[in-house]
Amino acid sequence: TTDFSFREHPHTRFNILTGDWILVSPHRTKRPWQGKVETLPPDNRPAYDPACYLCPGNRRADGAVNPQFDGPFAFTNDFAALLADTPDGSLNDDGLLIAASEKGTCRVIGFSPRHDLTLPQLTVEEIKAVIRLWQEEFRMLSADPAIHYIQIFENKGEIMGCSNPHPHGQIWASSHIPLEIDKENRRQEAHFREKGRSLLSDYLDKEMALQERIVTTNEHFVALVPFWATWPYETMIISRRHVTDVLGFTADEVTALADILKKLTTRYDNLFNISFPYSAGMHQAPVNSGDQPHWHWHMHFYPPLLRSATVKKFMVGYEMLANPQRDVTPEWAAERLRGLSELHYKENTN
Amino acid sequence: TTDFSFREHPHTRFNILTGDWILVSPHRTKRPWQGKVETLPPDNRPAYDPACYLCPGNRRADGAVNPQFDGPFAFTNDFAALLADTPDGSLNDDGLLIAASEKGTCRVIGFSPRHDLTLPQLTVEEIKAVIRLWQEEFRMLSADPAIHYIQIFENKGEIMGCSNPHPHGQIWASSHIPLEIDKENRRQEAHFREKGRSLLSDYLDKEMALQERIVTTNEHFVALVPFWATWPYETMIISRRHVTDVLGFTADEVTALADILKKLTTRYDNLFNISFPYSAGMHQAPVNSGDQPHWHWHMHFYPPLLRSATVKKFMVGYEMLANPQRDVTPEWAAERLRGLSELHYKENTN
Ligand SMILES: O=P(O)(O)O[C@H]1O[C@H](CO)[C@@H](O)[C@H](O)[C@H]1O
Ligand SMILES: O=P(O)(O)O[C@H]1O[C@H](CO)[C@@H](O)[C@H](O)[C@H]1O
Repeated sequence: TTDFSFREHPHTRFNILTGDWILVSPHRTKRPWQGKVETLPPDNRPAYDPACYLCPGNRRADGAVNPQFDGPFAFTNDFAALLADTPDGSLNDDGLLIAASEKGTCRVIGFSPRHDLTLPQLTVEEIKAVIRLWQEEFRMLSADPAIHYIQIFENKGEIMGCSNPHPHGQIWASSHIPLEIDKENRRQEAHFREKGRSLLSDYLDKEMALQERIVTTNEHFVALVPFWATWPYETMIISRRHVTDVLGFTADEVTALADILKKLTTRYDNLFNISFPYSAGMHQAPVNSGDQPHWHWHMHFYPPLLRSATVKKFMVGYEMLANPQRDVTPEWAAERLRGLSELHYKENTN
Repeated sequence: TTDFSFREHPHTRFNILTGDWILVSPHRTKRPWQGKVETLPPDNRPAYDPACYLCPGNRRADGAVNPQFDGPFAFTNDFAALLADTPDGSLNDDGLLIAASEKGTCRVIGFSPRHDLTLPQLTVEEIKAVIRLWQEEFRMLSADPAIHYIQIFENKGEIMGCSNPHPHGQIWASSHIPLEIDKENRRQEAHFREKGRSLLSDYLDKEMALQERIVTTNEHFVALVPFWATWPYETMIISRRHVTDVLGFTADEVTALADILKKLTTRYDNLFNISFPYSAGMHQAPVNSGDQPHWHWHMHFYPPLLRSATVKKFMVGYEMLANPQRDVTPEWAAERLRGLSELHYKENTN
């Protein structure tokens, strides 16, 4: 009889942040792929595109004209999923039909006036300006007492539903606490109550001791493939210090966050020598919800690609109906990401 | 001040089966779409394809040769995500790294020897033979005491990760109870304990009284858009009788299930006059887990398309990091599906 090995045998792993399990099938990459092959969008954009509603000086859907900005900029989404003026209302029909009105707002955050760049191609100084804008937006949005959670995120690449290649992210602020935040809230709260330390501080110590899933680090942040990663090249950035939200960072930490964002996204682009698609976003303490000392700021990256620039992982039948499943181990993915350069392939002219 | 309206204003709805909430943004379809447009796979397949590993008489990856079957057929997946001979093993490192070995098996279910057909194009008799094979497989797989859940499902269409257009589904049987089943288990158990009736019996009575979300019905089954539907055209088939799993159906119910499967999938194909992609699957009682009287058999359909045959709904940044979100109301989707013919567009030669 063989011994059980996490490198070889099917197993489940527990996500300590959500309480969910993930099915890992390390042996399954051997299967041939005859399925859908993605087409890559062209990667030779001009620095300015007259048809782009995010370029400086251009007109947006609501008629507003963008200023001639020279850094990051923010405005309210012209087709927002959440609206500030939603009237109150709710329904509970025998506990079977349950619904409630939802208030909020959706903001668009342009990362740069340049149409042709993406996050890893900006300088650390330019990324710092994006982080400062995130902080400003977070402060501004949390001033509305109706808002209880502020989700800062980016959909990068057509394959992730991004409808405009101009580098940008979004912020959706809502009156309800969203599902994923609620799960992480409960788990972090229980751990903090029991241990007096944040869940991610303890987890980070464990990962730093093992060095198996670390991708890159600096003085204030660590990027790693979480033990329970679901997407093939999923990663997480964790602040070394236990900080509850983006407003808690010192000036040094803002610089270090810009640095690790550049390093991690550069490694991603270097994996398949393409502008690497993902959805990424911060998780942090809810606002206007009382003291949240158990929250530990972190950022998730969920990239869809599996085998190559054109073959993605499909989270479909079994994953939607039963349980998320992955085909390579998180350790294998971490090793590949760790082996890549932190000099962007487009800058590498040797 | 306006009154709150579920047809107009952003709101959240509660999924009584899982306990999760979904964000609904009825007004959001107005936004223009400049994002990814899917390419449709060719829809002129031959009745027999010599290169297809699911066609009769052809050789599979493991060297086995398919028999000259004339109905549905089943075999073990040559690249299974779950394996029967996984050694036992588990890990719990300070409650931070938690994992356990997983046993199981993955089966492939060919629906027809014909390479060029799909479920809605089979006759009711032919679909009945598929249901009988599902029953046979369910009986056979549950005979292994290591198995606790049997997930019967279909990924249809390239866009849903289906790697071979020959009509087929899959069955994954696992030693753990998967995440989605665990959620539905708890909610159905609590309702049954409190009310002495299954959750879906009570829900079905409510929907039949309202007639707002019903798509099609027959003597033994109802197809509807659930009040908490996440995907634009998501539907659910519910048995009128409280039956815990697919083995509990009478001969009449098997015929009626075949009938409603044909009607629902025909309506789907008629929506955009294409072979409509989806992931679909049954939810039913776990096996080898003691008495499960609270379980009520049902089947979910999760189709990705939103606006047209080529523009899908992306469940990305906000949805992955925060909360699932939809852009049209379930009532609007039900009305559209209800308005379609139950004669397949390819058979409609007028
Ligand atoms: O088993 P298949 O058809 O090769 O694979 C497909 O369905 C599986 C079960 O939903 C998924 O895990 C895969 O990502 C998908 O491509
Ligand atoms: O707001 P956008 O970029 O038009 O839309 C994109 O991101 C949203 C938030 O994740 C999703 O709801 C949409 O499905 C996606 O296409």
